[in-house]
Amino acid sequence: MPPSLEKTMAAAQRVSRAYRIEHGKKFRLKHISPDDTGESAPVEIPWRTKTFLDFAHTRLAALQDKLYAQKRWSVLIVLQAMDAAGKDGTIKHVMSGVNPQGCDVTSFKVPSPAELAHTFLWRCALRVPESGMIGIFNRSHYEEVLAPRVHPEFLQAQNLPPSLVTKKIWQERYQDINAFEEHLSRNGVLVLKFYLHLSKDEQKKRLLARLNEKNKNWKFSESDIKERALWDQYMAAYEDAIRATAKPWAPWYVVPADNKWFTRAIVAVAIIAALESLNLKYPKTPKGHEEILLAAKKALDEET
Amino acid sequence: MPPSLEKTMAAAQRVSRAYRIEHGKKFRLKHISPDDTGESAPVEIPWRTKTFLDFAHTRLAALQDKLYAQKRWSVLIVLQAMDAAGKDGTIKHVMSGVNPQGCDVTSFKVPSPAELAHTFLWRCALRVPESGMIGIFNRSHYEEVLAPRVHPEFLQAQNLPPSLVTKKIWQERYQDINAFEEHLSRNGVLVLKFYLHLSKDEQKKRLLARLNEKNKNWKFSESDIKERALWDQYMAAYEDAIRATAKPWAPWYVVPADNKWFTRAIVAVAIIAALESLNLKYPKTPKGHEEILLAAKKALDEET
Repeated sequence: MPPSLEKTMAAAQRVSRAYRIEHGKKFRLKHISPDDTGESAPVEIPWRTKTFLDFAHTRLAALQDKLYAQKRWSVLIVLQAMDAAGKDGTIKHVMSGVNPQGCDVTSFKVPSPAELAHTFLWRCALRVPESGMIGIFNRSHYEEVLAPRVHPEFLQAQNLPPSLVTKKIWQERYQDINAFEEHLSRNGVLVLKFYLHLSKDEQKKRLLARLNEKNKNWKFSESDIKERALWDQYMAAYEDAIRATAKPWAPWYVVPADNKWFTRAIVAVAIIAALESLNLKYPKTPKGHEEILLAAKKALDEET
Repeated sequence: MPPSLEKTMAAAQRVSRAYRIEHGKKFRLKHISPDDTGESAPVEIPWRTKTFLDFAHTRLAALQDKLYAQKRWSVLIVLQAMDAAGKDGTIKHVMSGVNPQGCDVTSFKVPSPAELAHTFLWRCALRVPESGMIGIFNRSHYEEVLAPRVHPEFLQAQNLPPSLVTKKIWQERYQDINAFEEHLSRNGVLVLKFYLHLSKDEQKKRLLARLNEKNKNWKFSESDIKERALWDQYMAAYEDAIRATAKPWAPWYVVPADNKWFTRAIVAVAIIAALESLNLKYPKTPKGHEEILLAAKKALDEET
């Protein structure tokens, strides 16, 4: 790889670190501006050039190949955001260079009756990636401290014993989520959580585009407008959740989302940095295995 | 129900409470004798009579029927023990009166490659009973702090990143198990854990019976003898696990297991007591629903 690109990647990783929250207590959403594009970095980074993006994709694909071969670690990427913040586009653009055999995307929708009959972590626990895999949660267990908090009727649908539904329920859910993610991290699952931080104004523009442009109409849902009306409640719920669950073993990245190109670049670079920290290696040839390889070569050569 | 039987059941429940451990710190296995049969109780309890056993089965079936109809709670029963302690017989004799549609038994065997590729809690988390159900784990997530502790090569098979396998691993697993069970208990799953406490002498008798009696031969496995040789290590691992994970929300019952009739009676009575504490009720007819019922009756009556 050209050394200048290596340097650029290192600088980009430093920029991405500014959005990584490992200790939530002091965090506020207002600390990060949705239209930030990392201009304060000491070096100018060519985020949008094909050269840089190709370099990032190649790097990510190479890391994923080792992850898959080594089968010791797995990576769980959680994506959360308001509508139109760019979750789907981020998955598409960041992960397109990666071998799909090593990458599972799960989109969590409205819970099914079978899902509602289990604890709120159940359907997500089921889909945690096995070793060697990258698993992406498009929405996740975090919905369970967001949607039912803003819509108390969703909590009703879970049909919990009334004696268990107390004022402490959200704190208890945070504790359960933290313990779940700590369990994953202790057992070889690298947990990375991304909140795509969109402004209310930019959402308006994007929703209008969905209404005005014929080939974007399919993306529009009536609920988008209903949920938009609850913007402030959602922001409060997101801030509270990030503050309670940003941990060194399961950090949140709060990524400015008003500029799609910046969101995607930061997500890609942050994932690359995290994968590099694992120091992944192809499995070594076990002792005595070389003789087996030689014998196999010989057998193939001697085939008639 | 005859009042004398009610009184007997209440007395039996008091006896069973002596084996319930909610705070593990001070517990030692030697506190409970494997050949204890509750003789110290102030009342004599006719544990082995058909009248008492029928009464217990009827009571359990009635409670399970409400549990299933109400669909708010579920019950997870964990059964752990050395070979030949009577796990299978206990399930058969205690649960035979219960509607199998409301009761799932999962026997956890040697983990499959897919199970080994996930975290150690994964395969058990998958099988946690949904609301309304009784789920029985014949062996469980506790195997993960028993078998690999006695056989370090089993831990190897989990292919964890070496940096995560430290001296703290058993304490971390206890923490993860406690958090997992607390999560369940906070979300409507009643967790009851039974350790069938068998003596080494009684195991010898039962294994010899498997070898000597033709129609018991099928139950014998070569590994029974190998594991028996590790008896003391297993006892230490069991004691440590029970001490670390006996909690008010997920108690252990350490049940004397040298007399099968006593083991089964105590397990049945303890489950009945725990279900009674939930104060289960059939769902009420919702408002306005009576008119729907009346209209339905009328429609059926008027059918030609």
